[in-house]
Amino acid sequence: MAFQLGTNLTLRVELENRAGTFARLAATIAAAGGSLGAIDLVRATSRKMVREVAVSVADEEQKERLLAAVRAVEGVRLIQVSDRTFRMHQGGKIEVVGRVPVKTRDDLSHVYSPGVARVALAIRDDPSLAFQLTMKRSTVAVVTDGSAVLGLGDVGPAAALPVMEGKALLFREFAGLSAFPLCLDVRDPQAIVDTVCHLAPVFGGINLEDIAAPRCFTVEEELKRRLDIPVMHDDQHGTAVAVLAALINATKVVGKRLPDLSVVVAGVGAAGVACTRMLLAAGVRDIVGCDRGGAVYRGRVEDMNPVKEWYAAHTNPEGKRGSLREVLAGADVFLGLSTGGLLRARDLAVMAKDPIVFAMANPLPEVRPEEAAAVRVFATGRSDYPNQINNVLAFPGIFRGALDCHAREINEEMKLAAALAIAGEVGEDELHEEYIVPSVFNRRVAGAVARAVEEAARHTGVARKVEP
Amino acid sequence: MAFQLGTNLTLRVELENRAGTFARLAATIAAAGGSLGAIDLVRATSRKMVREVAVSVADEEQKERLLAAVRAVEGVRLIQVSDRTFRMHQGGKIEVVGRVPVKTRDDLSHVYSPGVARVALAIRDDPSLAFQLTMKRSTVAVVTDGSAVLGLGDVGPAAALPVMEGKALLFREFAGLSAFPLCLDVRDPQAIVDTVCHLAPVFGGINLEDIAAPRCFTVEEELKRRLDIPVMHDDQHGTAVAVLAALINATKVVGKRLPDLSVVVAGVGAAGVACTRMLLAAGVRDIVGCDRGGAVYRGRVEDMNPVKEWYAAHTNPEGKRGSLREVLAGADVFLGLSTGGLLRARDLAVMAKDPIVFAMANPLPEVRPEEAAAVRVFATGRSDYPNQINNVLAFPGIFRGALDCHAREINEEMKLAAALAIAGEVGEDELHEEYIVPSVFNRRVAGAVARAVEEAARHTGVARKVEP
Repeated sequence: MAFQLGTNLTLRVELENRAGTFARLAATIAAAGGSLGAIDLVRATSRKMVREVAVSVADEEQKERLLAAVRAVEGVRLIQVSDRTFRMHQGGKIEVVGRVPVKTRDDLSHVYSPGVARVALAIRDDPSLAFQLTMKRSTVAVVTDGSAVLGLGDVGPAAALPVMEGKALLFREFAGLSAFPLCLDVRDPQAIVDTVCHLAPVFGGINLEDIAAPRCFTVEEELKRRLDIPVMHDDQHGTAVAVLAALINATKVVGKRLPDLSVVVAGVGAAGVACTRMLLAAGVRDIVGCDRGGAVYRGRVEDMNPVKEWYAAHTNPEGKRGSLREVLAGADVFLGLSTGGLLRARDLAVMAKDPIVFAMANPLPEVRPEEAAAVRVFATGRSDYPNQINNVLAFPGIFRGALDCHAREINEEMKLAAALAIAGEVGEDELHEEYIVPSVFNRRVAGAVARAVEEAARHTGVARKVEP
Repeated sequence: MAFQLGTNLTLRVELENRAGTFARLAATIAAAGGSLGAIDLVRATSRKMVREVAVSVADEEQKERLLAAVRAVEGVRLIQVSDRTFRMHQGGKIEVVGRVPVKTRDDLSHVYSPGVARVALAIRDDPSLAFQLTMKRSTVAVVTDGSAVLGLGDVGPAAALPVMEGKALLFREFAGLSAFPLCLDVRDPQAIVDTVCHLAPVFGGINLEDIAAPRCFTVEEELKRRLDIPVMHDDQHGTAVAVLAALINATKVVGKRLPDLSVVVAGVGAAGVACTRMLLAAGVRDIVGCDRGGAVYRGRVEDMNPVKEWYAAHTNPEGKRGSLREVLAGADVFLGLSTGGLLRARDLAVMAKDPIVFAMANPLPEVRPEEAAAVRVFATGRSDYPNQINNVLAFPGIFRGALDCHAREINEEMKLAAALAIAGEVGEDELHEEYIVPSVFNRRVAGAVARAVEEAARHTGVARKVEP
C-alpha cells in the first residue's frame, strides 16, 4: 500500500554556495529512498542559495528517515518541510459562491427581500418551478456515514469529509454540477434514510458514497422508494457501469460476445453484486461469484445471507462448486472486486484462450501486473497502469443526464446507456488490449454519458422535463 | 404590501421608426401606473427599431393591465416580457465550486485518491484537524423548515429555498463564508434537531432561519445543548443585536442612558423575547412587553405560555397593566416587533420627551413614517427610509468571528460585543437622528463585528483556537 499513500514533500533548504553541496543533498535524498522532483531556486547570494526541492517518499517512516538524513548533510540547512497534499487541503477544497451580484440595494431587492418573496410564492403555488428557480436543478448531495471510506474502512464522518469534498470537486470539474458533502454522524439505516429525506427539497439527486454493506443496500432501496429524485450508491452502480463499459470493449478486442462469456467474480459484496446485476442486464448469462468460501451456488448453506441467496438464485447456471481457483478453469473473464494479491500467474493459466482480467481491488489489485503477462486484456482501478476502470467515467455524466431532464430515478436502462456511451468513446479503430476505456481526463465522456442517460430516461418515462 | 413586492419588468418591443412612436409607448406605460427605467436600443433599421425598456409595476394585477395597454399601442409590437427578479433566480443563486485545480492526474492524486487518504487518517487521529483541512472552518448551515418565511408565513421547505439561497449569498458577500441551505421537509422539533445533529460534522456553525415559534425555541436550545459548534436563530438574535446597536446610538443622540430608559416592546414572539433579553443584558431595566392582550405582567392568567411566563418574571418591574397605548405613556422607547400599522401619531404623543421609535414589522412598520413626524429618532427594517435596522449588519460578522476562533457557541458576551461594534461604526461626529446605524452595504461592519466577537469568545473561554 505504501506507494499508493506516498507523500509529495517540498523541502525548502539553504545551501552553501559551493560546488558539490547540491550533489551531496541529492545523493542523500536518493540514499534515503526519496525521489527527486522539481527543483526551484528561491534566492541566491554569493555565499548561500535557497532552493525548494520536491521529493516523493513512500510513507511517513521513510519521510522521517529522509528528513533526518537531510538535516545531517554538511552545508545544507533544512528551513521548512511542506506537503503538497496537505497544503491543497488547507481550509477545504470546495466553497459555496454566488451566481448573481449583490453589490447594490437594487441587487439585494431582487435576490433577497423583498423580491425573493415573489419567487417563494411562485414555488409554493407550483412546486415544479423549484427546478427552474433554485439550485435544486444542478445540485447533488454526496451522502456518507464514513463507514467504508476508500480502502480505509470506518474512519467516521469527520474524517470522511475531505474524501467527499474531493468527490464534490469531481462533480464540478467533470459535470459542472454543484455537489455538497453530507457526512452523517449516525449509523442506523433508518436514521440515515430519514435524514436524507428531510433534506431532499434542496437537491436534484442523491449520490450515496462509502457506506458499508449491508447497510448501503437498505439505505439505497428505501431512499429510492421514498424520494422522487435519483438516488445512486456510486460504489455499486458507478463501478458497475464502468466495468460493463470496459467489458464491452474488451470482448471486442478478443472477438467474443457477451452472451457467450463465462465470467468469474471474486467478491460478492456491494460492488460485486452491482456489477453482476449490470452484466446480467447487459446479456451475460454465465456468471459464477466467489467469496472466501468459494463459489456461491443454489443450495449452499455455509456463510450465506439474503444478498448471497439472491446471488445464488440468479447466477451460476451450472451450479459449479469449489474454490475460486477451481471455478476459474475455462473462464473467459475474471472480475476481481475483493482484496489485493489474490491470484498468481499460474492461477490464471487455467482460464480460456484470450483471458480478460479486471483486477479492481484498491490500492493493491487481485492480480499484480507482473503476474498478468499472459493475460490478453488486463485492467485495474489504478492510474499508473493502462486501462484504468474508474467510476469517475460514469457518475458525473449519469447525474448530469438525470438532472438535466429532472429524472425521478436512475434505472437500469439509464445505466446501460451510460456504459455503452463510455465504451463508445473509444473508437473501433483505436481499440486495443491496452486501450479499452477512455482516459478519466477525456472531457468528452461526461457529456456523451449525460446525453445517453437523458435519452434513456425519456425513453423509459422517468424524465419529468420531456423536451430537451 | 404591494410596493414591497413590486416587480421590475424588462419589455422587449419593436417600434416603427417614426417620430412619436416611443412617446406613445412611454405615455401608455405611465398611464397604466408603470415607472420607466433604463431604455436600451437592441437594433435599428430604417423602418423598425427594437428596444428593451425596464418598467417597474406595483403588483401582478398592474403588470397584466400594463402589458395589455402596451400591446394596444399603435406602431408597437411587444416581443417579450421578462422579470429581472425571476431572471436572477434562473438555475439558482449559489453554486458549489472548487478551491483547488483538478486538471491533471497529479492534481487528482492530491485532492482525491490516493492522497486524500492521508488527510482522512490525519483527521481520524486528531479530529480538531477538521477545522484546518476541510471546509468546516468556513461553512455555515442555513437551516429552515419553511414554516415562517419572511412575512409570508408557512410556505414549506421547497418554497423557502430561494430565500435561504439569498441568505447564503449574504454570508458569502459580507463575511466570505460558505453557507449552504438546508430546507428540511419535517416539522417535529426533535426530528429537526436530530437531522441537524447528524449533519454537524460538515459545518462550523448553524444559522437557524425562519422557523416558527415556539418550535424555534426548543430547536435552538436543544441544538445548543447537543452540538459543540455555534448555533444561532438569526430571526431572534441577529435582530436583537442590530436593535441593541441602534438603541445604543439612538440614546446617544437624545442624551439618555440605557439603565434609565423605559422601553415598551410590542410583540413577545421570538424576536420580541430575544430583543428583550439582549436589552436586559445590556443594562436596560424597565421593559414592558405587550401582546394582543396588552401588557405582560407577573400574575397575568389569560393567554399565557411558558415563554410569556419567563417574560413576566423578568420584565415590567412596576407590574404595569393595560393596553399597549396605555403603557406607552411616559415611555422613552417603543420597539415594535409585531404587525404593521399598529400605532398612529396620537398614540405616540403620550411618550416621554425625545421619543425613540423602532418600528420593525415587515413589510409594513407598526408606525408609518408620516405618523412619526414628532418622533425624535425613528427607525424601521426597511431600506427605503433612513435608519434601516437589518440583521445583515449582525449575522455575517457574528458567524465570521465565531468560526475564525473555532468557537463552541455564540454567547451573550459575543452578541453584546457585536452590537457595540455595529454601533461603533457610526462615528460620534456622524451620529444624527437619521444616522444611527451604518448602511447594510458598509463593508467595514462585518469585519469589525467579527473581530469584536472573536475577542469576546476568547475572553469567555469558548474559543478553541486560542491564538488569533
